[in-house]
Order: sequence, then C-alpha cells, then structure tokens
Amino acid sequence: MKMLSLPEKNKRLKRLFHPESVAFIGASNKRGKWGSIILANLINGGFTGAIYPINPSEAQIQGLGAYKRIADVPDIPDLVVIVVPPQAVPAVIGECVAKGIQVGVVITAGFAEVGTEGERLQRKMAKQAHAGGMLLVGPNCNGIMSPPEKLHVAMPPIYFPPGPMAVVAQSGNVATSIARRAMKRGFGISRFVSSGNEADLHCEDYYTYLSEDLDTRVILSYIEGFRDGRRFFAAAKEVTRKKPIIMLKAGATRIGAKAAKSHTAAMAGSDLAFEGVCSQAGVIRAGNMDDLTNIAAGFVGQPLPAGRRVGIVTAGGGWGVLAADACAEAGLEVPALSKETIQELDEFLPAWWSRNNPVDLVAGLKPDHLEKSLECLLRCLTIDGILLLGIMPALPLDPLPPSAGPEAVEERCQVLLETIGEVFDKFMGLAHHYQKPVIIASELPFSVENLESRMALMLGQRGYVCYPSPEDAAIVMASLAVYAEYIRS
Amino acid sequence: MKMLSLPEKNKRLKRLFHPESVAFIGASNKRGKWGSIILANLINGGFTGAIYPINPSEAQIQGLGAYKRIADVPDIPDLVVIVVPPQAVPAVIGECVAKGIQVGVVITAGFAEVGTEGERLQRKMAKQAHAGGMLLVGPNCNGIMSPPEKLHVAMPPIYFPPGPMAVVAQSGNVATSIARRAMKRGFGISRFVSSGNEADLHCEDYYTYLSEDLDTRVILSYIEGFRDGRRFFAAAKEVTRKKPIIMLKAGATRIGAKAAKSHTAAMAGSDLAFEGVCSQAGVIRAGNMDDLTNIAAGFVGQPLPAGRRVGIVTAGGGWGVLAADACAEAGLEVPALSKETIQELDEFLPAWWSRNNPVDLVAGLKPDHLEKSLECLLRCLTIDGILLLGIMPALPLDPLPPSAGPEAVEERCQVLLETIGEVFDKFMGLAHHYQKPVIIASELPFSVENLESRMALMLGQRGYVCYPSPEDAAIVMASLAVYAEYIRS
Repeated sequence: MKMLSLPEKNKRLKRLFHPESVAFIGASNKRGKWGSIILANLINGGFTGAIYPINPSEAQIQGLGAYKRIADVPDIPDLVVIVVPPQAVPAVIGECVAKGIQVGVVITAGFAEVGTEGERLQRKMAKQAHAGGMLLVGPNCNGIMSPPEKLHVAMPPIYFPPGPMAVVAQSGNVATSIARRAMKRGFGISRFVSSGNEADLHCEDYYTYLSEDLDTRVILSYIEGFRDGRRFFAAAKEVTRKKPIIMLKAGATRIGAKAAKSHTAAMAGSDLAFEGVCSQAGVIRAGNMDDLTNIAAGFVGQPLPAGRRVGIVTAGGGWGVLAADACAEAGLEVPALSKETIQELDEFLPAWWSRNNPVDLVAGLKPDHLEKSLECLLRCLTIDGILLLGIMPALPLDPLPPSAGPEAVEERCQVLLETIGEVFDKFMGLAHHYQKPVIIASELPFSVENLESRMALMLGQRGYVCYPSPEDAAIVMASLAVYAEYIRS
Repeated sequence: MKMLSLPEKNKRLKRLFHPESVAFIGASNKRGKWGSIILANLINGGFTGAIYPINPSEAQIQGLGAYKRIADVPDIPDLVVIVVPPQAVPAVIGECVAKGIQVGVVITAGFAEVGTEGERLQRKMAKQAHAGGMLLVGPNCNGIMSPPEKLHVAMPPIYFPPGPMAVVAQSGNVATSIARRAMKRGFGISRFVSSGNEADLHCEDYYTYLSEDLDTRVILSYIEGFRDGRRFFAAAKEVTRKKPIIMLKAGATRIGAKAAKSHTAAMAGSDLAFEGVCSQAGVIRAGNMDDLTNIAAGFVGQPLPAGRRVGIVTAGGGWGVLAADACAEAGLEVPALSKETIQELDEFLPAWWSRNNPVDLVAGLKPDHLEKSLECLLRCLTIDGILLLGIMPALPLDPLPPSAGPEAVEERCQVLLETIGEVFDKFMGLAHHYQKPVIIASELPFSVENLESRMALMLGQRGYVCYPSPEDAAIVMASLAVYAEYIRS
C-alpha cells in the first residue's frame, strides 16, 4: 500500500468504482449462497461491462460463461470480487496479482475479527496484495456500489438511485441502513463502500478519493475505530476543506467498544479523543443513522449560515417550544427579535401573536403569513438561519369528506404534492437569495397512506427535505453552523 | 372545580368522551373558519349522536338545523363546543351553565397566553364555569377526540382509529403529531385531549379519569409546565400504579421555557425538579415524540423485564455495536454470556461466531438460527430481556429480478408480509412464554414503496412494532425496565 503514490492509488480506486469488466471468484449457481446472491445483484443491477464468473466445476453460472481459474479469463479484469472460504483467499489474491488485476473486493469473513489465527491469515492476504501493488476492499465486508455506473457488488438486493451522497462504513449493514435512509428521503448514492476489516484500504483512503469525485457532494461515514489515527486525522482535515464528512462513530461506551472489537476487530478508542479529532479536522458528528442522513441532506440543499442565531417561525406553538429546546441543546442561539422585525410582523400578524422568537402563527390560517414571516426573519440582520415549522398554512386545507373515492383522494394528493413542491421552491429560493439556511419541518394536513413517502421522494429529487420533527431541523441547523465556523476558521 | 367530588368529576369527564349530544357554539358555514372546519370534522368523523349548531344569523349550518342561542336547543346537550371570539366566551359559558350543560371544550385562543388582559378574561370564564359546576377543556386548545365513539371535535381532519393509547397534551399540534405517529405504527387512540391553557381541567384530571378508562392501556402525555405541582405529583403517583404514563416535557432549557410561557402560559420550572417528580411518581420520560410513541407501543405489546440485563441477537454486526452503545447510554447492562449459553449456541452457530453478547449471526443465512439463538438467550437466567436486530435471516430473501412486473412484486410483498406476521407471532409468543420482553428492530430484505408502512400497520394491529433502528429498541427496553423497577418497589 505504501508503495503506491497517491495519484496511482486514486487511479486504481477510480477503476474500483468505474470498472469496464468484473471477475467474480466464487461465483455460484446455488441459491442462498453469497456467491450466488451477490452475482445476481451485479447482473440484475444492470452493469453493462463484461462479467467473468470463476468457478472450478461449472461451465455456466447464472447464464454467463464461467472460467475455471482467473488465469483463464481472456482479458485483464478491472475489478475482482472474491467470495471464497477464508483459507483460500491468500492464494486467490496471488493469482489475481499474477493476472495483473489492480483492485479487488474481498467479501469473505473469518479474518482478524475472529482472533489470532484469522489475523495471521489477514496479514498474509494483505502482504500478497501489497507485493503485487493490488488494492483490497475488505475483507469481512458486504461490498461496494457505484450507482451512476450501475455497479452493484454487494449483499443487499437494493438498487440505490445515483445521487450526491457517498457512504463509507466499517459495517455493511449500517452502510445499507444509511443508504436506505437517504433513498427514502429521495436522495441518491454516488458510491457505497463497506470497508470491513480494512486490511488494506482504510476509510480515509476512500474519503481522499471521494473529495475529488465529481458525483459526490457529501460523505456519510460510520466508523467503529481507526486503524491509524494520525493518518485518518490528516486525510480528514484535507477532505473537509473540500466536502463535508458526516460521521457516526460507534463504540462510544465500554460495552459498545467491546462489541466493535468482535465485529470488525476495530479498536474504538476513547470517545473524548475522537470528539477532539472530529472538531479539529472539521468532521461533523451525528448521533445516529437518521441524524446522519438528515444532516447530509441539509448540506446538499442549504446555504451555510454565517452564525448560530436562529429564527423560528412555527404554525403550531408546541413544535416551537420543542424546537427552542432543541436549539439550546444543540448549541444554537434563539435571539430576541429586533424592534424593527417586530414592527414588520405586527403589520400583518393577528394582534395576539407571540411577539417573540419563536414567531408563533397561532393556528393562523392566512396562506401568505408564513411566507411574509419567513422573509421578515430572513431580512433581520441578527438572524443567521430559519427553522420553519409547519407548512400547513400555505397548503389547501379543506378536509376530504369520508365518502371521497380513491380517485378524488388521488386528485387531492396530486394538488397537495404540487403545492408543496411550489412552496419549497419558493422558500428555498428565498434561502438562497438571502444566503441563509431555511430548514423546514412539517407534517401534512391530512393522512393518506403513501403521501409522506411520495412527498419525500419528490422533494429529495429537488435536493430538499421536509423534516419530520422540530428536533431534526435543529440538529441539521447546528451541523451546518459548526461546519461553516470550521470552514471560516 | 374544587366543589365537585372525584366521582362527580369523573362522571362529567365520561360525558365529555361519551356524549349523546353535542352543541356547537360558533358553528359556521364560512370555509376556512375554525367554526366551519371543526364542525365539518365532527360531522365527517361519523358521530351518531345529535349535533346542535348554534349561530345567531343562520338557519342551517352545513346541512344541520341551527339554533340562535343555546337556550333554544330542545334538549340539554351532554357536551358543548365553543368557538367564538375570546371576549364573548364568558357570557356564552354563563348561558351554558344556565342551560344545565356540565362539560365544554373551549377552542378559542387569546387568553392567559397573550398577557394580563387575557388572564383576566380566562379567570372570569373559569369562575363562571366553577360557579355552575361546569367542567372546561381549554381554552386555547385544538380539541378532543374519542375515536371509539366516533367523536371528533378537533382542528386536524385526521380520523384516528380506536386503540389502546390515550394522548393528553398541553399543545394541540404536538397531540396531533403524537397520535399520527401512533397511527403510522398501526396503533389506535382511545382518547385525545389538547388541554390548552388548562383554565379548569389540568392534565392530571385526565390522567386520573383515564386510569379507570377500559379503552386506555397507556397514557402518552406532552406537558410544558404544571399548574399545580403537588396535585400533579399526587395524581400521577396513583395513576402509574395502574397504567404507565409516558411523558415528553418541553421547556427543559431556558430558551424553551420562555417559548412555553408565550405558548400556553405554562411555567416550565426546573428540569431537574421535574426529573425528580417523574422518578418518584413512576412517570416514564421520553426524549421526543418518536421515542414517546415507540415506548408506549412497547408497553402495549411486551411483558415487563425482571431487571436491566439485556441479551442482543443481531443479524448484522454494526447494528449490534450501535445497540450495545445505546444500551449502555440508557443505563442497561449487556452482560457476558454464561458458559452454558455459549455451549448451547456453539451447537448450531458457525465456528467463527462472536461468542459474546451481542450474539452476531455474521450474515448467517440459516432461517432457524435466529429463533434458536433467541430461545437460548430467553432461557438464560442472567438475561432479563432481548434486543433482536434484523429478522432477515427468517425471511424469504430471493432478490426480485428487475424485470418483475407489478403483480409479481405485489405477490412477493404479500408473502413477505405474511412471513413477517408469522415470525412476530412466534417470537412474541416466546417473549410471553418466558415473560421477558423481545424488542425487535429490523429493516426489510428489499425496498418497495409502501412495504414498510404496510408492515407497520399489520404489526401494530397485533400490538407489535418492528423498530427502525437499534437505538429505538434500546430506549424502549430501558423504559420497560425502569417502570418495572418502580412497580416492584
């Protein structure tokens, strides 16, 4: 690994995510085996390059002509996928190096995570790859994906749409959970890496590559521990100057750290030390998988705030109180409104409005109050960003009679979704005009199965999110503010 | 209020939730007015009793014969709903008392939450009601619902199905948000109260009534502050012996407390003091609206654990690590496994399994490993409850080919949902057999729009939840353990 220069390494990583051909060692016809499931996923994912299944005893695998050994393939594949028993892996790597293959994904488990014998085997495998200048993803991982290339070399049969988020995780199932959360919010994936035991490539290698990757706008990462803390820190510090890294770190507690050790042989280290590394390297920390995705979406769609002073506009008082609490807990300020702003709001809000931040529209039903209040706060010089809670006042509110048939319901849903799209376009246009983030959290005026997920997809495709709770919105705002401070520092 | 005995008060509260007739003062034909929207909701909700709209200038309101004044109604309505401007409310209450009405819901805002003048008006209104022995919900609230009675006197046009959860909240929009979250998980609502400024009835009055209400199994509450701390404490302490109260408290921070004051005139008080009240009264605290609903669902479907020792079975290592962290943070223990349990697991798990708690099935694909591991841990004497993470190994996993048409996809979804139902029945049967909670968190093996919400509804109707993340599962387990300790103490 150390023998390769950075440009050389990145060239190979480019091959990993943009291969023209893939060899698959351990390809199988047997239903239920990973060598069958992952190959099926690669084929079904629509990869358009050549696929070479390798199997010593079958002539055809899943309809493709198979080869007995990698040496027999009439081409040098750009990428090799390895799904053979652990004891066989070092020899297979040797064959791949001999063939001239430059990068491989080792799915196989049973290495450093299972103890001393596995560690020995893992070192042997890595040594063999290093000697031949071959890069390795894994072992003990669930694969990689590159949705813009329709490359799907991974366990879960889920085909993420292409989009701005890269996922790098030291756990395949967490990587999948994160990408699913992004997909449900209508955001696609640029690259997906389950880095496993990181015998060769570490998460920081992927970060560095992704910092120059044009398809990636934000990096979402889950880690259980560093392999090399100093190297991680140096790489992350460079990358965050170019793109945000949002990080979920496991093993923060003694019990969690023990679980991490037996999962991917990771040494979790002290959580306090990790917190220090993050804040000095500009890495944004998330508390869980939902926050991670929510924050990343904020970075895709929002301008960065100039400070931590938040204005809250709410269509319902309770959400305003919860948001105020959440802002305080996230280290944001909720300053009093200036006299001028109060005067401006007095001109159109009802006499009994709160005259406070949060600006409570008090179950107001005038559609334009929301937009006018938003603009008042955006113009206010002592406010850096807005939490807008409840877009109902701007939506058609007439209740659906219970007698409404499915067609009438669908028609109403269409109108509602269209209006929501227009409202978001308008409000996010204001956000970008004033260069202040406008984080919107809301529910819908009526409850129809599917409507929320349809709204999420529609908005996500435009780069927006309608967050489900006031706390989510506050957490996103705080993350934008922390990153903006780091970038300015 | 103090004049009424408890049985007398509860008799009137029963009338509130089970009225045979409802008068509606401020009923309107004008679209967009609350007097029109709420009346439409009451009619559309399917209420089968008599509805008497009161309006001084219209003969018909929304198709119903209207009365000029409450005095003209040819009956003594069980319940009155009041949606007239604040200045008019005290006089209207006087008329209701004269008519002999015993309970009313005041929707109107513009009382104590807007300052001294409003406070005066609120006191005047309450005095008038007290003098006549009439109970009041509100003012400044979004209404009440009693879904088993098809009684829907509230702003949001959402008809919650009847079910085991009662919602009592000092915010109408938070009450609605909580009930929506319950509904999305397939759980219905027994009673819904937006208690508003609590000029007369306080949240503790509702708790006391609900503790004897046969339709209610668990009370979900949002509060911004007590009106009378000692009275709240005494009532809550009695109620929690009979039913759990799960509580979200706002105004925990200085900023939030300020927002609460201008929302419902509530004095939030110190969060530390509130924490003390909760732990001494057996009230379970939730961190946000999602946790609140998740925890309440746990109380509906799970047996209580005998202690805090958690066994974790996970189909994916990363979720196991996140769960271990979350358990530690929630005050749970994740003890090492006994020799006997390890031996039992050794008999069927692959040689490289973690031999630790969490029990990591390491991407195992054998369908029965999950159930067998679960039973091993349930039998273990040093474990009080189980987190089961990932039910995929027990489900049909074959990927759907991308060419599959909508019928094939639907057929696959049906099979999957049926299998999930069977798996939950089996696992929850084990939970009740061993009298240890089994909290399940999982994603689905493939991603089809709607599948998750369909699964949630199907499971919720059986009293089960498939939690979306390992942290959720840990929080639910911790809440069950804390309540169980309180009940045993």
